[in-house]
Amino acid sequence: MTGVPQAGHQIEIETSGKGFVEITALLKRWLSEIGAEAGLLTAFIRHTSASLIIQENADPNVRVDLLDALEIFAPEDRAYAHSEEGPDDMPSHIKSMINAVSLNIPVAGGAMTLGTWQGVYVLEHRTAPHRRKIALSFIGRVADA
Amino acid sequence: MTGVPQAGHQIEIETSGKGFVEITALLKRWLSEIGAEAGLLTAFIRHTSASLIIQENADPNVRVDLLDALEIFAPEDRAYAHSEEGPDDMPSHIKSMINAVSLNIPVAGGAMTLGTWQGVYVLEHRTAPHRRKIALSFIGRVADA
Amino acid sequence: MTGVPQAGHQIEIETSGKGFVEITALLKRWLSEIGAEAGLLTAFIRHTSASLIIQENADPNVRVDLLDALEIFAPEDRAYAHSEEGPDDMPSHIKSMINAVSLNIPVAGGAMTLGTWQGVYVLEHRTAPHRRKIALSFIGRVADA
Repeated sequence: MTGVPQAGHQIEIETSGKGFVEITALLKRWLSEIGAEAGLLTAFIRHTSASLIIQENADPNVRVDLLDALEIFAPEDRAYAHSEEGPDDMPSHIKSMINAVSLNIPVAGGAMTLGTWQGVYVLEHRTAPHRRKIALSFIGRVADA
Repeated sequence: MTGVPQAGHQIEIETSGKGFVEITALLKRWLSEIGAEAGLLTAFIRHTSASLIIQENADPNVRVDLLDALEIFAPEDRAYAHSEEGPDDMPSHIKSMINAVSLNIPVAGGAMTLGTWQGVYVLEHRTAPHRRKIALSFIGRVADA
Repeated sequence: MTGVPQAGHQIEIETSGKGFVEITALLKRWLSEIGAEAGLLTAFIRHTSASLIIQENADPNVRVDLLDALEIFAPEDRAYAHSEEGPDDMPSHIKSMINAVSLNIPVAGGAMTLGTWQGVYVLEHRTAPHRRKIALSFIGRVADA
């Protein structure tokens, strides 16, 4: 084994309010651009009212039920001390707490080691559309490096 | 400091339905096989209805109570839009959302930096036994490298 | 791209019972000490009744509401099989399950890629103060290396 290189990047995603925006293809594209062969991809969302999540990419009803579950976990009609930014803001922080701020995906054979049914998504918790910044890091072997 | 190597692997685990399967020893064995000295171990489960978790390895009742808590978080008797794969499938996705898809454990002195009471487990959310694939990545210094 | 170095460290934090202890500055200091330029920082808490969390660092009421939400997720007055270590112990394990045991933060331009409102915290789940050990790993480019 020899020493491995490191690369960084940032992507920005437009959400359309509460819900999922798939970014699997964007991550694949970046790995391809840098010639990633084997190592570790990290995606980190630079916000506390949106999350990153890996979930089933087949039946869209799964994502409907996940959003419903999040509303039950963090209802808007509870009394919160932090209420200045609207009824959806504090629930968004709670949803952010129980979801992931970063994902770490091993890369092997030039591809993420995602399972057949796994897609990578930005999970927006706010009601209004937002522009979300995601920092990327890859550490590992690259082609022709 | 000099450049560090990278290694990858995949392990497969048979679960026996809802519950915990400890994989701490399997991770130790792989780190030993590759001569890992210091760096970062990542384990990533390639499924959306099972999780990876680090929890207390002492009193087994802790794991009983954790399973009970998960049933409360994601009850099977709620009405879900995604219901074709059985009453335990959508709750499994919800449990997967609030647990971890990957674990990242610093390695120092040739060993994972786990605390005294920390064990690493596959957490099966489905009722039936499943075969689960876990991708491993290590980046760091290795012995005699 | 050339091979990247790796560094490890451990910090210890005194908590004062349930609540948040910010460690953003401690992480910055360590990155500065090792001359970290670009790569991946991992923080890993070596306990199963405390967590690491990235949350809003502005309005302290956010953290009040997050603690309240955790009490609702894991109430002390539920009957638990694991009860020998006090009424706050099993709820702490449940809170630990739905929060993060490790955080992975890309480093770019010599700094963590945290968003404007993101702070890094130890989240103590036990009622009594505890001393918590956090293992750190950095893999990436360093200054003058």
